[in-house]
Amino acid sequence: MKKIKYGIIGIGKMGSLHARKLKIGLIRNSTLGAVCDIEPKRIEWAKNTLKDIPVFDNYKQLIDSGTVDAVLIATPHYLHPPIAKYAISKGIHTIIEKPAGVFTKDVRELNEFAKSKPEVAFGIMYNQRTNKLYRKAKEIMDSGQMGELKRANWLITNWYRPQAYYDQGGWRGTWSGEGGGVLINQCPHQLDLFQWLVGMPKKVRGYVKEAVHRDINVENDVTAYLEYENGATGLFVTSTHDSPGTNRLEISADGGKIVIENNKLTFYKLKQREQTFNAENLKFMSRIPYCKKVVRISRLASLLELVFGQHTKIVKNFSEHLLAKEPLIAPGAEGIDGLTLSNAIHLSGWLNQEIKLPIDEDAFLQQLELKKKSDKEQIKLEY
Amino acid sequence: MKKIKYGIIGIGKMGSLHARKLKIGLIRNSTLGAVCDIEPKRIEWAKNTLKDIPVFDNYKQLIDSGTVDAVLIATPHYLHPPIAKYAISKGIHTIIEKPAGVFTKDVRELNEFAKSKPEVAFGIMYNQRTNKLYRKAKEIMDSGQMGELKRANWLITNWYRPQAYYDQGGWRGTWSGEGGGVLINQCPHQLDLFQWLVGMPKKVRGYVKEAVHRDINVENDVTAYLEYENGATGLFVTSTHDSPGTNRLEISADGGKIVIENNKLTFYKLKQREQTFNAENLKFMSRIPYCKKVVRISRLASLLELVFGQHTKIVKNFSEHLLAKEPLIAPGAEGIDGLTLSNAIHLSGWLNQEIKLPIDEDAFLQQLELKKKSDKEQIKLEY
Repeated sequence: MKKIKYGIIGIGKMGSLHARKLKIGLIRNSTLGAVCDIEPKRIEWAKNTLKDIPVFDNYKQLIDSGTVDAVLIATPHYLHPPIAKYAISKGIHTIIEKPAGVFTKDVRELNEFAKSKPEVAFGIMYNQRTNKLYRKAKEIMDSGQMGELKRANWLITNWYRPQAYYDQGGWRGTWSGEGGGVLINQCPHQLDLFQWLVGMPKKVRGYVKEAVHRDINVENDVTAYLEYENGATGLFVTSTHDSPGTNRLEISADGGKIVIENNKLTFYKLKQREQTFNAENLKFMSRIPYCKKVVRISRLASLLELVFGQHTKIVKNFSEHLLAKEPLIAPGAEGIDGLTLSNAIHLSGWLNQEIKLPIDEDAFLQQLELKKKSDKEQIKLEY
Repeated sequence: MKKIKYGIIGIGKMGSLHARKLKIGLIRNSTLGAVCDIEPKRIEWAKNTLKDIPVFDNYKQLIDSGTVDAVLIATPHYLHPPIAKYAISKGIHTIIEKPAGVFTKDVRELNEFAKSKPEVAFGIMYNQRTNKLYRKAKEIMDSGQMGELKRANWLITNWYRPQAYYDQGGWRGTWSGEGGGVLINQCPHQLDLFQWLVGMPKKVRGYVKEAVHRDINVENDVTAYLEYENGATGLFVTSTHDSPGTNRLEISADGGKIVIENNKLTFYKLKQREQTFNAENLKFMSRIPYCKKVVRISRLASLLELVFGQHTKIVKNFSEHLLAKEPLIAPGAEGIDGLTLSNAIHLSGWLNQEIKLPIDEDAFLQQLELKKKSDKEQIKLEY
């Protein structure tokens, strides 16, 4: 069977990991075709390590070289949309790393362009969609067992990043280089999974705090209140300075409750829907019986999956989508949803007001430009 | 040793429970002196059940009768301050049921009056302050081990109340009779414990939803965002329609994290303060080691304590305060703090804006009057 040849654009931390996995044949139906970076050190690393693999210092040359069927774009976030557009325009199938971009206007244009080229596959590295617990939660939500949403709270404060992390320099933790802090770098997975599981809210109020216990420009402490079309509410809380942090998702609905914490999903399935029970019940103090279903993954399995399994699954799925029309786990077009949440929370915090969705993309860009100017050092992204 | 003779004013659900416990001698150093209610049925119940105990149909007569050293006021909330003031003015030691009142202006005046009579003891039935887990949390907070606060989140959605509860009628679930919904009836304990453990915030943004999946006037779904003087943030989330609900308190601070859930307190004590570690650490991805201390109470013990132990402890402590100068677990003057949180959340939700503390008490009263007028049926409270 034919193998899909991937070109990796950007071989920093994530990109070099993808390249090595492909090079050693870890991913079924997939192989490494070429790599590209603008950093001389990384180019040297690639030449020494990847041996016979062509190495480019310009992404257009890689895309035009005929050495690859698909690209995986692992550059700084701002560059995802322009590079993806170029690749798609040349008929090269494209996976972008998360987040899809920094601002939704850019990503919306990318999505529209990709839609105009339906023959070119477009995916996004939302690898946490392959996590057993979130897949189980998605299955329960999609099955209709949960019914109407009441409340969804995600407390994800275990992204601990000390000052030394931010002091690495480069694009990290800057508005001009990265486009934000914990929302844009650490949380894209959770923001995606949140909307994947419970849908998009209709309005957002974000409390966005910059430089909390850290000497940085960007935000590292966020509380967002969300309201959904049916009146249900949500909370998304994240930070990089809590220790030890928490990762706890709770969804409450008419049919019961799902809690994911400590590598365990618990589904409290009510024996009768709450609204039905409430309409029929005559006792003034009563409880609705439920059964409890638990799904666990061991800490070790979770760690191994995170390091070796999840990204591999996304690439394998992409290859099998190309070879055998397997549906994509993470279609590229869906990258805009989590980013919309991120942009809405930022904008709400910056303007100190509630933001209705869809957001005013120009207002966001205008504010982002102000933020970029506030960087102590302006990062110029070359590509 | 002399026993303190209590008069119970209001012998509804809670009051009759207190009366029976005192009558059968369950509470050390304490005995039942008299009871009072305006409901003929309850008066009849008291005469039949409490036998030789004097029964009054007017609280002033009970207070003036010379039959009691102290009163425990378990009337509808609005009546706590005026009755307490009368009792204190007559030199009768006073415990009020929670909440201290419905609006802080009233309670502030009560506090000032009580302060002018230091010879008269004044307490409040914050029985959950005797709960082993919250006492342990208080001990940890007061010991300084936690250090500077980062975040405090309380998700207390296990106050399930079906429509049948609200359909009982009377003052329940009305603005004119009770003064609110889940904030004023179900949550006073948590609002008190919250501020007892982490202090009062400087501002509050409340999202207060009325009649969610219930045919009622008052609020039964609340999300409040809090900000503290040092920039730390808090969340208080409560409802009466989630099933099964959650009761989870998490406090994150410079020295670690406390989580109380499912009758278990877990203290994650960092081996080094986060800010100290952060200042010294050079690795860009690192974690701070911690040790884990767990305190549990069994479900049965918790239930027994709730039904028999906690209220008893508050009354016993009050008697011993009078007899042996034992410090009060719940001084009456502290009732205003939880109520301030409650009033601030209400006012923020009603005005749809952030509220700075101290709140504008007149603005609150003005809004409360509008709410009272919105009741389908106006409840007239006699006393």
